[in-house]
Amino acid sequence: MLVVMHASASTSDIDRVCVAISAMGFQPLPMPGAQRTTVGLVGNDRRVDGSHIEALPGVAEIIYVSSPFKQVSREWRAENTTVTIAPGVTFGGRDVPVIAGPCSVESESQILAAAFAVRAAGAVALRGGAFKPRSSPYSFQGMGKEGLALLQRAKQETGLAIVTEAMDDDGAHLVAEYADCIQIGARNMQNYSLLKTVGKLRKPVMLKRGMAATVQELLLSAEYILSEGNDQVILCERGVRTWDPSSRNMFDLNAIPTVQKLSHLPMIADPSHGTGVRDRVSPMARAAVAAGADGLLIEVHPDPNKAFSDGAQSLFPQQFADLMGELHAIASAIGRHVAVLPATP
Amino acid sequence: MLVVMHASASTSDIDRVCVAISAMGFQPLPMPGAQRTTVGLVGNDRRVDGSHIEALPGVAEIIYVSSPFKQVSREWRAENTTVTIAPGVTFGGRDVPVIAGPCSVESESQILAAAFAVRAAGAVALRGGAFKPRSSPYSFQGMGKEGLALLQRAKQETGLAIVTEAMDDDGAHLVAEYADCIQIGARNMQNYSLLKTVGKLRKPVMLKRGMAATVQELLLSAEYILSEGNDQVILCERGVRTWDPSSRNMFDLNAIPTVQKLSHLPMIADPSHGTGVRDRVSPMARAAVAAGADGLLIEVHPDPNKAFSDGAQSLFPQQFADLMGELHAIASAIGRHVAVLPATP
Amino acid sequence: MLVVMHASASTSDIDRVCVAISAMGFQPLPMPGAQRTTVGLVGNDRRVDGSHIEALPGVAEIIYVSSPFKQVSREWRAENTTVTIAPGVTFGGRDVPVIAGPCSVESESQILAAAFAVRAAGAVALRGGAFKPRSSPYSFQGMGKEGLALLQRAKQETGLAIVTEAMDDDGAHLVAEYADCIQIGARNMQNYSLLKTVGKLRKPVMLKRGMAATVQELLLSAEYILSEGNDQVILCERGVRTWDPSSRNMFDLNAIPTVQKLSHLPMIADPSHGTGVRDRVSPMARAAVAAGADGLLIEVHPDPNKAFSDGAQSLFPQQFADLMGELHAIASAIGRHVAVLPATP
Amino acid sequence: MLVVMHASASTSDIDRVCVAISAMGFQPLPMPGAQRTTVGLVGNDRRVDGSHIEALPGVAEIIYVSSPFKQVSREWRAENTTVTIAPGVTFGGRDVPVIAGPCSVESESQILAAAFAVRAAGAVALRGGAFKPRSSPYSFQGMGKEGLALLQRAKQETGLAIVTEAMDDDGAHLVAEYADCIQIGARNMQNYSLLKTVGKLRKPVMLKRGMAATVQELLLSAEYILSEGNDQVILCERGVRTWDPSSRNMFDLNAIPTVQKLSHLPMIADPSHGTGVRDRVSPMARAAVAAGADGLLIEVHPDPNKAFSDGAQSLFPQQFADLMGELHAIASAIGRHVAVLPATP
Repeated sequence: MLVVMHASASTSDIDRVCVAISAMGFQPLPMPGAQRTTVGLVGNDRRVDGSHIEALPGVAEIIYVSSPFKQVSREWRAENTTVTIAPGVTFGGRDVPVIAGPCSVESESQILAAAFAVRAAGAVALRGGAFKPRSSPYSFQGMGKEGLALLQRAKQETGLAIVTEAMDDDGAHLVAEYADCIQIGARNMQNYSLLKTVGKLRKPVMLKRGMAATVQELLLSAEYILSEGNDQVILCERGVRTWDPSSRNMFDLNAIPTVQKLSHLPMIADPSHGTGVRDRVSPMARAAVAAGADGLLIEVHPDPNKAFSDGAQSLFPQQFADLMGELHAIASAIGRHVAVLPATP
Repeated sequence: MLVVMHASASTSDIDRVCVAISAMGFQPLPMPGAQRTTVGLVGNDRRVDGSHIEALPGVAEIIYVSSPFKQVSREWRAENTTVTIAPGVTFGGRDVPVIAGPCSVESESQILAAAFAVRAAGAVALRGGAFKPRSSPYSFQGMGKEGLALLQRAKQETGLAIVTEAMDDDGAHLVAEYADCIQIGARNMQNYSLLKTVGKLRKPVMLKRGMAATVQELLLSAEYILSEGNDQVILCERGVRTWDPSSRNMFDLNAIPTVQKLSHLPMIADPSHGTGVRDRVSPMARAAVAAGADGLLIEVHPDPNKAFSDGAQSLFPQQFADLMGELHAIASAIGRHVAVLPATP
Repeated sequence: MLVVMHASASTSDIDRVCVAISAMGFQPLPMPGAQRTTVGLVGNDRRVDGSHIEALPGVAEIIYVSSPFKQVSREWRAENTTVTIAPGVTFGGRDVPVIAGPCSVESESQILAAAFAVRAAGAVALRGGAFKPRSSPYSFQGMGKEGLALLQRAKQETGLAIVTEAMDDDGAHLVAEYADCIQIGARNMQNYSLLKTVGKLRKPVMLKRGMAATVQELLLSAEYILSEGNDQVILCERGVRTWDPSSRNMFDLNAIPTVQKLSHLPMIADPSHGTGVRDRVSPMARAAVAAGADGLLIEVHPDPNKAFSDGAQSLFPQQFADLMGELHAIASAIGRHVAVLPATP
Repeated sequence: MLVVMHASASTSDIDRVCVAISAMGFQPLPMPGAQRTTVGLVGNDRRVDGSHIEALPGVAEIIYVSSPFKQVSREWRAENTTVTIAPGVTFGGRDVPVIAGPCSVESESQILAAAFAVRAAGAVALRGGAFKPRSSPYSFQGMGKEGLALLQRAKQETGLAIVTEAMDDDGAHLVAEYADCIQIGARNMQNYSLLKTVGKLRKPVMLKRGMAATVQELLLSAEYILSEGNDQVILCERGVRTWDPSSRNMFDLNAIPTVQKLSHLPMIADPSHGTGVRDRVSPMARAAVAAGADGLLIEVHPDPNKAFSDGAQSLFPQQFADLMGELHAIASAIGRHVAVLPATP
């Protein structure tokens, strides 16, 4: 339930509504907006009767939220949420930031080479896994804390913001310390304990859609993070599982406008996992921007043939540089522009 | 099996290869190319031994086609096939033609209004069903032959090429008479009797991907048409079925570069069925062009709220006109351009 | 809309209702039942206002059928429909008939060997394709009319009923002449022209579920057949397409009780296509009977390793004989029994 | 890589092989079998060259395991693994134990009523969630530790073994203390941190298949648990996600024989989640046993209409009692029997 206040409502009007909601056994959540304040009611997932609140002074309207998600919905907040993970790297506005880098951090020379290459081509943030969720326990599991230190080093050298994945509570606290944005991977999209943990941290979170998660489930998982008080959430389409083996995944670009209609959160796209094959990454990166994606996440490796993981879908640095040129043109065609960092450090 | 001839091979060299293939019990199919001729072998789906052919004069190379499709594959023909359905309406080249119009032909006034509207906005061909495959036998099944006559009328008035669906043998012959391109719908993608029928007609065919057809199955169905002698085939991605109810279909844009890599046939996209919801049609039409689609098929109705079918996914004429402007900009950004008809009639 | 008459309603009461429905512009369809008559209204797929009919003498109740299918639904006919394709071979009652045989008719000796083997093991009907829908135009397409004659020969020798597929109008008329039941394959489940054709023939039809058809779509396709006047329809689950490559198909046994709840038509299962792997056919055949399937369709080949098609999923004759023993035990456990033919001819 | 020793190999032969594997940089894992010992090599997921090991005394054969899973595979261990979670409750042998109970523990009276009811009908273990993974953060999340205490109470009263879910590390340690088997739910099937945690605990684990996990991924997730030293793992099919909304999930019974062929671990089935609709639970429970399932997990609630969660798929106690009678008959038909507890405590 959302209580929409009149534009002229006073602070005490708002307080009175909060008291009434508390008295009903729920938690009030006031949301000041540009023109008016809205007060949300947290702690129920059934319809409640708000008729007595409707009669309080300053109340314009009661909206019964029928959709299962609340704080992530456009009904709850009409304006886009912008998420700034570092100076100049903002998701959800007119800019389209590009995050690029290797699947995994493999060594100091590899991550620095990757960072300089993507920086030169125009990326504003660096990706690279220090903790890797792998289907097999015998596959390379990442460099762990040492990898995080290397990412921090790459940031100092290039000025790129850092986005990297956390797989459990301890990892989340570590990543929060070293990186600018905590990534929650597809396999953990419904790891609710982890979602609650990052909801309590005060750090931007990038939540990737699960391999067979519906758009509604993605939004409900984001709701777990927002319900703990953290609204700095970036959603990410990364391809889903279907019956067609012709691509590793099916890249669901419909999800971009769908999420943007239902939610105020920024929605970016990962064409590398979305296709799984190098020569389809560039066409799909262009398509994602044309569809209105609020950013891109792209795998680039200084030497893809030697990558420890995901080599087949990583771009060569030159391919990435060529792609960035095309993306600038596509973004312009729809009135947006690819984000750029102010100056090389 | 493909027998690639030297660039310098003579006509009698080629004839000798054809005779040898016939003597093996198969049918030879000579394919003259820009630089050299290739001779295909039709009538087998297992590996044959072509070692004695390799020794014939003028033979450069034997390629054993391991993929299950043959004539549709890039190995069989390296250059793009272009399909011209009417003067100025060519698929598979640098141009990106847009076919637009209502789901069904409903009346003379409706189809003429639609034709003038999409012509004015820049479409080069008119779509509109006279025979409608409907899940329920009690739903509107189309105007039949009368609808075809109205489409012909619309062509005379506007100069637009006509694309319309056939559902069975009789219908295919009728559509071939009235229209410029015969559409085979998703539900009939594996109706092999119908595919053979349109393979024997000398008329361009647009083959839509089945609701849960893999890319390989789409190409094998096209192979049925080519194997009967008709290579004027346009493929069409129209969204596929998945487990996410957030869109009517999932629009598989990965299939665009995938098909273009595997096959020389043009591949277009239908964002109307690909999304099923009006406000996602424009973003996905832009995305399809950015991904490299060789054309678009878009539902536009003069009055969508009164449409007999698919109203919810049909654009209003003004929305379509706005979209066409964006498409011109996107196509330019990737070095192509949206096809235009020479002059209003 | 269904008009349920009182048990005591007279013939003239029923006539009066039919006249009233005709006057509304629809076609009345009286359905005499064991206890009372119901009158259906054909020709609409929207809600109609039947309030004035409710007031007519003898009318007990009006049921507004909200589901998109009508004549196939349990609301339309409460009792199971039984479909007898030959003496002693009845689907939809207490008996569970087993149809068995090779994927394709390959030769006289092959089909006779198969027929005698499955007859000896207890099958009551013989399957075997004379017309084969194959993904590739270069694969074996069946023996055609000659194959039908061989099936007829096998029937004369063994007394088995014959079930075989038709792929187009001409084929349907031929199959109707030679066989006891016309099979419509998965790829043609939404070939509405063909469904209308077999709806006009007076021959039992076995309709297989499409590779990615929902239960609702299966029932709507059956509705096409019933709406043309043929209610002798057997439905068949044959596995569907999913994202898991561990089996060729996913065998959807949930569909058995689901269809039986929604419809009065018999629902059988094909564990051969439902699994695609020989060693899973027997467990899944047992499971289908335990789930309540009204019959089974099983591929058995006298020499699977030499089969022209589907060899990998065909049982050896001895495996089939062993399975039949298990099926008798499972059927007994749930109060049914596997159908048997009276005596060897 | 597996090193199969001769039946006559001595302990020092085996030790020598272990030393050789260690020298290659991997960890040897000797597996004594009924007839011979096999030594596994842990720590690689690529092919290694074992030719020098093949020449050591006592070595019969080297098997290169091409499949991505190792310790869970039948090649690694040919005999079924049996998992005994409490006296008389063994999975993987001839017995088919039935675990039943409510979705969630809701109160002392509810869980005790459920426990007595399922005990009376013949279940040997009680299910009931204390920690509940819910799509929405606003849904009932379970009673937590208090719920575990109530389960323990129910065990004391009825003698039923206890199976309940853990969602994170802390929860896993708590559940291990209170229950006989730790359940890992579908959403956490690829929560590798949690899998490693339960791999280190010495407690049986029931691992449910993810909503869109392939059979191979299920086995790889089990491999995470075995690779930490815990081979007491029961796998569970619980229905998967597809494009057909006619059931909540599609119950993939093919997975039963598929897993049993690939792995030595017991595989049970959960027809309650596998269907999501009460009236399909009994047919599918019967089908699962007929397909060879090594146990069942069934939701039964003393008053389903008042259940906090999953009420629509919970059986009434009387339905469950009726079903148990049918299951005894089906199990007998295939030479197994439904497990029974010795006597009421």
